[in-house]
Amino acid sequence: MCSVKGIVGAPDPTPFSLTMMDPEAFLDLANQVTKLKMYPYFDIAHCAITCLAIKDDLAAGAHLFSRKHPLACWISSMVAIFAGGLMASLLLGEPILGVFKNSNQLVIATLVWYVVFYTPFDIGYKITKFLPVKLVLAAMKEIYRCKKVYDGVTHSAKIFPAGHLPMIVIGTIKGNGAGFLKVFERLLRGVWTPTASELLQPSFPTKACLVASVIFVLDKKTELISAPHALVYFGIVIFFVYFKLSSMLLGIHDPFVPFENVFCTLFLGGIWDLMGRAFSGGKGAEAAANNPGGQQKSDAHAAKNGKADSLKKKE
Amino acid sequence: MCSVKGIVGAPDPTPFSLTMMDPEAFLDLANQVTKLKMYPYFDIAHCAITCLAIKDDLAAGAHLFSRKHPLACWISSMVAIFAGGLMASLLLGEPILGVFKNSNQLVIATLVWYVVFYTPFDIGYKITKFLPVKLVLAAMKEIYRCKKVYDGVTHSAKIFPAGHLPMIVIGTIKGNGAGFLKVFERLLRGVWTPTASELLQPSFPTKACLVASVIFVLDKKTELISAPHALVYFGIVIFFVYFKLSSMLLGIHDPFVPFENVFCTLFLGGIWDLMGRAFSGGKGAEAAANNPGGQQKSDAHAAKNGKADSLKKKE
Amino acid sequence: MCSVKGIVGAPDPTPFSLTMMDPEAFLDLANQVTKLKMYPYFDIAHCAITCLAIKDDLAAGAHLFSRKHPLACWISSMVAIFAGGLMASLLLGEPILGVFKNSNQLVIATLVWYVVFYTPFDIGYKITKFLPVKLVLAAMKEIYRCKKVYDGVTHSAKIFPAGHLPMIVIGTIKGNGAGFLKVFERLLRGVWTPTASELLQPSFPTKACLVASVIFVLDKKTELISAPHALVYFGIVIFFVYFKLSSMLLGIHDPFVPFENVFCTLFLGGIWDLMGRAFSGGKGAEAAANNPGGQQKSDAHAAKNGKADSLKKKE
Repeated sequence: MCSVKGIVGAPDPTPFSLTMMDPEAFLDLANQVTKLKMYPYFDIAHCAITCLAIKDDLAAGAHLFSRKHPLACWISSMVAIFAGGLMASLLLGEPILGVFKNSNQLVIATLVWYVVFYTPFDIGYKITKFLPVKLVLAAMKEIYRCKKVYDGVTHSAKIFPAGHLPMIVIGTIKGNGAGFLKVFERLLRGVWTPTASELLQPSFPTKACLVASVIFVLDKKTELISAPHALVYFGIVIFFVYFKLSSMLLGIHDPFVPFENVFCTLFLGGIWDLMGRAFSGGKGAEAAANNPGGQQKSDAHAAKNGKADSLKKKE
Repeated sequence: MCSVKGIVGAPDPTPFSLTMMDPEAFLDLANQVTKLKMYPYFDIAHCAITCLAIKDDLAAGAHLFSRKHPLACWISSMVAIFAGGLMASLLLGEPILGVFKNSNQLVIATLVWYVVFYTPFDIGYKITKFLPVKLVLAAMKEIYRCKKVYDGVTHSAKIFPAGHLPMIVIGTIKGNGAGFLKVFERLLRGVWTPTASELLQPSFPTKACLVASVIFVLDKKTELISAPHALVYFGIVIFFVYFKLSSMLLGIHDPFVPFENVFCTLFLGGIWDLMGRAFSGGKGAEAAANNPGGQQKSDAHAAKNGKADSLKKKE
Repeated sequence: MCSVKGIVGAPDPTPFSLTMMDPEAFLDLANQVTKLKMYPYFDIAHCAITCLAIKDDLAAGAHLFSRKHPLACWISSMVAIFAGGLMASLLLGEPILGVFKNSNQLVIATLVWYVVFYTPFDIGYKITKFLPVKLVLAAMKEIYRCKKVYDGVTHSAKIFPAGHLPMIVIGTIKGNGAGFLKVFERLLRGVWTPTASELLQPSFPTKACLVASVIFVLDKKTELISAPHALVYFGIVIFFVYFKLSSMLLGIHDPFVPFENVFCTLFLGGIWDLMGRAFSGGKGAEAAANNPGGQQKSDAHAAKNGKADSLKKKE
């Protein structure tokens, strides 16, 4: 990035600002990102991050479990790696096993699984877990995720051209399938956690995929987004990668929380609950009537509570 | 019903008694019921009753749950509302998400869900729960249920023209899908009740849908039922509505219980168990041999026990 | 088997050794086994063994359960009997209810279920459970199992001609569907045992079906197996029947365990774990370095542990 002086397009002397600002070069870059080949490097990154998550989910029992139940370990890893495709196939009435018909992807997934779980002295796991390596893999996985969301929306649009909800659902599920199948995937390992559902406490990737799916649907089916498709796609990739890295490095977990709090307060009963409480408690009601500022204060208080709740969920 | 004096041939001036008894007018009415348009009023009734059932299932936790987990609340409501279609699609190998492709129905379901869960001061819930309103909604839902059973049988007959069991299964499931999916729908809300299965303790709607499906299959595939289709359909509608209202107003829960008890005693081991017990206990055997009435008494006793059991189930 | 002296070319008069050894007659027999008609006797054997397993799974509660929940009892029996077809349909995107469209099979299954659960004084159950009868039924079920594995592989090969994993998965599931659906089938009866998954502790039939599927796939899709198809098929039938009978009569439960132990030691971390332990404990490391025999001893020790574990699983 420092020695960018060599992009001497035509006769401009300031090459850095040129790459940054020239719309055509930028669009070109976006186009290239759109057409990025996923196989095999991005596949590997996706498999590695997923297997890592499973090993971390097994926690202290990982070593013993991988030795005593290799079959369950392999199958649950494959289910987690191909989770998006599996769920999308089920929901779209396609053969579920179809996701395993591509032997190349399966071999890659199995190799990565083997490296993470069975290399001597846990070298594979330790290398993948090493922060710089993990950062690169995570960034690649986010690029892969964006492609999967887009593919999900496109695929669903072919089957239900007018079904906007199916498109959004399939996009979200393809993007974060492992999250939705976590309860089932744990069941394959003999662990039953009915309250760990992604729906009860949607994680950031789920919300991000939901937003990305909605944007892709708007881009595809309406005239609301006038930017070229490659730019929209590239913007979502940057959004995914940026928040993934900032969550890993800075501990920012969920930039959606403030918006959710406002939405919940306005539309999902927040204000009315407050008013109800105010009316039922006499003094509170008078105070609210006399002083509109008090209302806002309580709102802020509710939002704060909401935030505290959602922070608690994370722990 | 009291003024039936007007059953005289043709030129009677009292139109009420005429509509009641004239077979042609009656058939006309039945035909109109068959062709009743479901969208949107019956859809609304179905959604309202289903959302009400979910809110009642959440019991005291409903308010907190709807505020803290709006996504899970919405998805579990949609799953319950479209349960019949979802399960039928799964069992018939059709795209499950296909039931959500009709945006109109989805918007209605979402609006009703919003009204039941999030209107200020719970007005929506209280109005829907108000007995006269609930009675009307419940009656409409039963008419809707009959249509769904019929549609299920017809749809399955198209896919498996010779499969009588699939037709009956799909008819029953379309009619009372929310009952069958209850375990799964609760799981979406993080509650796991493996023993609350509809199969273990089939509720009255399930049994009624089963009977209705069998009648529709007989009507469609055999010559056993000679009445015109519209009459059969109308009869089932009346049966559904009548028992729903009498269960809500009079507390009659299950008119099938006596028949079940007789069937179980005759065919599912009841008599033989009694005889076995009689033979193993010496005195009982002698008494039974000497006095055939004793046999009947014990039968009645068993049936009473069976009834007591099924009443206990309800509690 | 003792009088094998007659393996001489053509004109031997002893017909027993002739049938035993004459390749053509043997091939003829194998061909006949391949074309054996399954309906209705083998169907009956399969249903009987499956219903027996369910009744044994219910243990002391079987009598009460079959009397109080006949519907759940019937449905869980049907699910277990048709488990292979149900799961295969789900995984291949075909209508799940399609397995029930054949009324003949359904009637047989229902009759057998009735005989096992509801005959007076448990005669049906006792006869089926009587060892000589059970041996014959079990042997017939194994022949049926082999056919189902083969049908599964063939059917999957039609849908995914290049998908080797789908073929193996479908073959295994068709062969031992009841094992894989056990957790779900128990759920239908209101019993939830998340740790009883077939994947965690694959039983012998599952492993045998897996091996048989792999052999069928090799036979079908590669040139590795040069024997005629009928011989391969017949060999697998003999393998299935032989180990089933020896497990019932002699208590040999799993001839695969030694191979698994070797494989796990060599490839799934066994050796490395030992080396790691040796290096971390100083003395052990020295001993291993000085005396390669010590290494083998510890290997044998690990294998023994592995065996002990898998024996413990059985209990």
